[in-house]
Amino acid sequence: MAGASGYAGGELLRLLLAHPEVEIGALTAASSAGTPLGRHQPQLVPLAERVLRETSARTLAGHDVVFLALPHGHSGEIAAELGPEVLVVDLGADHRLTEASDWQRWYGSEHAGTWPYGLPELPGAREKLTGTRRIAVPGCFPTGGLLALAPALAAGLVKPDVSVVGVTGTSGAGKSLKPHLLGSEVMGSASAYGVGGAHRHTPEFVQNLSAAAGERVKVSFTPVLAPMSRGILTTASAPLVSDVDTEGARAVYEKAYGAEPFVQVLPAGSWPATAATLGANNVQLQVVVDADAGRLIVVTAIDNLTKGTAGGAIQSMNIALGFAETTGLSTVGVAP
Amino acid sequence: MAGASGYAGGELLRLLLAHPEVEIGALTAASSAGTPLGRHQPQLVPLAERVLRETSARTLAGHDVVFLALPHGHSGEIAAELGPEVLVVDLGADHRLTEASDWQRWYGSEHAGTWPYGLPELPGAREKLTGTRRIAVPGCFPTGGLLALAPALAAGLVKPDVSVVGVTGTSGAGKSLKPHLLGSEVMGSASAYGVGGAHRHTPEFVQNLSAAAGERVKVSFTPVLAPMSRGILTTASAPLVSDVDTEGARAVYEKAYGAEPFVQVLPAGSWPATAATLGANNVQLQVVVDADAGRLIVVTAIDNLTKGTAGGAIQSMNIALGFAETTGLSTVGVAP
Amino acid sequence: MAGASGYAGGELLRLLLAHPEVEIGALTAASSAGTPLGRHQPQLVPLAERVLRETSARTLAGHDVVFLALPHGHSGEIAAELGPEVLVVDLGADHRLTEASDWQRWYGSEHAGTWPYGLPELPGAREKLTGTRRIAVPGCFPTGGLLALAPALAAGLVKPDVSVVGVTGTSGAGKSLKPHLLGSEVMGSASAYGVGGAHRHTPEFVQNLSAAAGERVKVSFTPVLAPMSRGILTTASAPLVSDVDTEGARAVYEKAYGAEPFVQVLPAGSWPATAATLGANNVQLQVVVDADAGRLIVVTAIDNLTKGTAGGAIQSMNIALGFAETTGLSTVGVAP
Amino acid sequence: MAGASGYAGGELLRLLLAHPEVEIGALTAASSAGTPLGRHQPQLVPLAERVLRETSARTLAGHDVVFLALPHGHSGEIAAELGPEVLVVDLGADHRLTEASDWQRWYGSEHAGTWPYGLPELPGAREKLTGTRRIAVPGCFPTGGLLALAPALAAGLVKPDVSVVGVTGTSGAGKSLKPHLLGSEVMGSASAYGVGGAHRHTPEFVQNLSAAAGERVKVSFTPVLAPMSRGILTTASAPLVSDVDTEGARAVYEKAYGAEPFVQVLPAGSWPATAATLGANNVQLQVVVDADAGRLIVVTAIDNLTKGTAGGAIQSMNIALGFAETTGLSTVGVAP
Repeated sequence: MAGASGYAGGELLRLLLAHPEVEIGALTAASSAGTPLGRHQPQLVPLAERVLRETSARTLAGHDVVFLALPHGHSGEIAAELGPEVLVVDLGADHRLTEASDWQRWYGSEHAGTWPYGLPELPGAREKLTGTRRIAVPGCFPTGGLLALAPALAAGLVKPDVSVVGVTGTSGAGKSLKPHLLGSEVMGSASAYGVGGAHRHTPEFVQNLSAAAGERVKVSFTPVLAPMSRGILTTASAPLVSDVDTEGARAVYEKAYGAEPFVQVLPAGSWPATAATLGANNVQLQVVVDADAGRLIVVTAIDNLTKGTAGGAIQSMNIALGFAETTGLSTVGVAP
Repeated sequence: MAGASGYAGGELLRLLLAHPEVEIGALTAASSAGTPLGRHQPQLVPLAERVLRETSARTLAGHDVVFLALPHGHSGEIAAELGPEVLVVDLGADHRLTEASDWQRWYGSEHAGTWPYGLPELPGAREKLTGTRRIAVPGCFPTGGLLALAPALAAGLVKPDVSVVGVTGTSGAGKSLKPHLLGSEVMGSASAYGVGGAHRHTPEFVQNLSAAAGERVKVSFTPVLAPMSRGILTTASAPLVSDVDTEGARAVYEKAYGAEPFVQVLPAGSWPATAATLGANNVQLQVVVDADAGRLIVVTAIDNLTKGTAGGAIQSMNIALGFAETTGLSTVGVAP
Repeated sequence: MAGASGYAGGELLRLLLAHPEVEIGALTAASSAGTPLGRHQPQLVPLAERVLRETSARTLAGHDVVFLALPHGHSGEIAAELGPEVLVVDLGADHRLTEASDWQRWYGSEHAGTWPYGLPELPGAREKLTGTRRIAVPGCFPTGGLLALAPALAAGLVKPDVSVVGVTGTSGAGKSLKPHLLGSEVMGSASAYGVGGAHRHTPEFVQNLSAAAGERVKVSFTPVLAPMSRGILTTASAPLVSDVDTEGARAVYEKAYGAEPFVQVLPAGSWPATAATLGANNVQLQVVVDADAGRLIVVTAIDNLTKGTAGGAIQSMNIALGFAETTGLSTVGVAP
Repeated sequence: MAGASGYAGGELLRLLLAHPEVEIGALTAASSAGTPLGRHQPQLVPLAERVLRETSARTLAGHDVVFLALPHGHSGEIAAELGPEVLVVDLGADHRLTEASDWQRWYGSEHAGTWPYGLPELPGAREKLTGTRRIAVPGCFPTGGLLALAPALAAGLVKPDVSVVGVTGTSGAGKSLKPHLLGSEVMGSASAYGVGGAHRHTPEFVQNLSAAAGERVKVSFTPVLAPMSRGILTTASAPLVSDVDTEGARAVYEKAYGAEPFVQVLPAGSWPATAATLGANNVQLQVVVDADAGRLIVVTAIDNLTKGTAGGAIQSMNIALGFAETTGLSTVGVAP
């Protein structure tokens, strides 16, 4: 896998170490090439002495599956050099968007193409993943937000005009050395960034919610940075179309997710907390109708690195390769 | 002051110790009566040996100003026994709502009455506070949310249909011994509660935003608990009425708050962080138009215990007593 | 198992769910009896609907293994009613001390007896655990501190006069509703408690370090509470007997722990961090000689709930029942 | 002042804004020169629009007092260019050590000289600060540790062989972009670093404790990084010389600190917590005799940026300039 020294790469390796069908092959990195993995991922004890190699199509050749956990814009080139028989799972954004113009607008470079979208719980997604050799893993915010809103939009419960606030831990920003990510700045503070449609996950929301709704959906998305390493708590809301009550809305969600192994519609009165999903691949969800405000409110909790990135990637890999979908993944969080 | 052993009481005393016009009189508590304050508020070194007395109209008599930091439903009775010449500042909810039916619905007891609302930055509020002898201090969530939305509603920028997500530290819940407030549960976790119009601050939002808008405003309010002691980061949004752009929206906010000593409209590109307001009475605010989503987004950061409770109380006290409004209050936060 | 609603119980269940040789039987609790487990342990999704029963010898009867995660002083009575063929694993303190007088002095009740001590890495401990039907799981602080110091004392590197400072997360204090454990008090603060030989883990340190040294060891133990849910970072030091250098000291530790699956002597220059052990059963350890001060310094990191409690319990159970010692346990932490 | 964009500089400015005798002059920085202070210190609202200038003797000329908050090794040169009538307060390490050989060993550059040491509570220190025009502000760890141990060593209570463990927040490491200081790494983790006499504060401990004891003191110092922005909790211990009990030890400390405005010997049974000193210049201290271990244990709590750096600097400045020592400083912490 490529990008083994970062947070997404570390989480992926943590999960792959517990996957019964996987043997871990070459590990690559950029500036950390040549150093042992233990220096970057001290938690991965069994791999501590593995030496990182340079990220290139050559070092990644010869594997059945290649995971790419690279900065945006770097996956396309490498993927092009890997054969069509290799399963390539891109944890970056490069192959998520269907419209080249969207990619151009939000990322400012040439579009690398569109791959099957690795969120099996969306309508029709599981089918496209079956047998595929290319997977675009969703962004962490879209994972929490799409699962919150897709059933309501698909069922016509709400108008195509949604608001999403995603409260995230800092690991979603990666191991990047920026002042606002220093512990001293983060601890004891909640802060906003990328507000007002400025976050690159916005077009990913619009594209996939519009597909669920069958019409163009307007999405207002605001990320909030909270003082924790992991976790995304998403609060999503939209105006109700008709006078559905909480019970009716729950029924829609229970129908949509009743057979899903990784989505848990909580009992009435229980509310999601990200700690309950730490290190697990599951999504905790609650839904309620606010009759006074005329809005449907859905809250989801995920671990941004697990279900939001590396766990979701493995879930999709399982589908693509024909393993049981839950292989190597857990619904049990590490709490407190 | 009554309620000296709690978080709101402690913050009030911290600020009053630095207020040049105030001498601290009797300190009272409920179950902690008879014990020294230092046992409950170790940070208040100059008052460490003060012994707490029982909360009653008798122990509170003889002061020019009485602050009540009591559980909801306890202020009314005590206030009734204090003379009309005494300035009574209620940090609880008892006197915030204008409609007795709202109080009855949300708090389930008899309404104690309505006092001037201690948020001077709202239109008309400062006038009502001048010379008053009764002040209802706003709730911490409404402080952050009303300041975010009132100018846009008053100027007709947005429709009367707003969404508010308030990300709060745990001190807003007070020093109450509940499992979900334990450090082990809170740290590393973001969680939702009181969702879907279930939080008691909702009618306070509706009442005051409706007053600003001149029409009934629908309010969807969701609180989120984040792993920090202090701070509220509020994300508020509403559908735009016309095609105002970010610059035009900023102009509305700069006009509304240009003369306010405690509200700071941040330069374009800077976003609020609660740490910057820690221990200070100021509000950091940013506003942006999301043209794609057709919504106005406003983010505010406050310290829930300072501007959101005790600092706001002192600001209003200053107005009521004719002191300079900023006396004893600071715009300088303790960061990092 | 008894005590399923607490932190130790929750962690035990998390690990048992992944243990291939174990089937989870009756779950009991005290005040939470009659409620579903999901209300107390939302992270244990597969057990969410299990209803807690009352803790008694009757509800615990009929199992091959019984885990007791009860308040101190409650295990003895229940264990006495369980047959000698049942493996009883006591996560509480009741059966750790060999001297009845020590128990009496530190816990103020009658001594329940002494069981084999569940820290297999101590000299001779693994043998006593093999085939046993009674296991006393060590305290979390002793786990980190004994592993830090036992090799040096056994090898005669240091004088029997040690200092231990254990920096712990809050979950070690359990789910107890005390003001100093509230999130608002804990976050942003480090604090001392039980200082000066006042902590009940002190006699457990003395007993086991004296056994390792072959002479009475004086132990100064200070716990420090840090703002995190999990983890203990132990700094242990003692005066050097001879002029051993760091290399020589490392050799002693590498010899002691080279074959241990769960103790990792880190490469020179790397230092333990508790995050690297989160949710894992391993111990990260570093040792250095401070020649100027004439002291040996050893630092260990563990997860207090895993290796420090529930993981250690399962490790010892594996030995007692003849499973491979690492069954169901991991050396891979959940980080960042 | 020089170094206005860092954490020490920010805290200094926060305190100077509240100092009645000080007017803030030029603010300088290195790579941030030319940018407004508000971009780096959003909490310093009144100074938000001040533009940072380049750090040089020229931009710092013409002030009565110059504070230097620079990386180690940079103060000497600039100070040499400032006139002897200017009060220069060095928050860096350059002028703390008396022995040039110590400086050479620990910092690897030429020694800049020795200035009066800015810890007025040490025996004889206040006298040397009176009227001086050069002040070396102590390191943050020595502030907490020297105050813990100096009275016992001066009174001959303990042997000159001390152990110090300092649990610190991350701001002590400054605003430096290193991976181990990222929020994602720090939160939820306690870690060791600079262990075994490897931390540069060690010679500062030895020098000043030896002065207090009147003989060479051996010091074992271990820093621990905890997940909080501010605060140092120091646990210090040493072998008792005679059979003093806790009461006798307390008497020594109460005598030493009874007249000190910023050191608070806590009532028996209360233990220091760093939160109680947040933003305040005071030191909370507790002392106890562990008779079984034969050691004296002293615990102190400070805010590393206030008493440990910027507050201590201002306290010493007050003495040097003849202001009341407490001017502009507070003993009231911001808690919870």
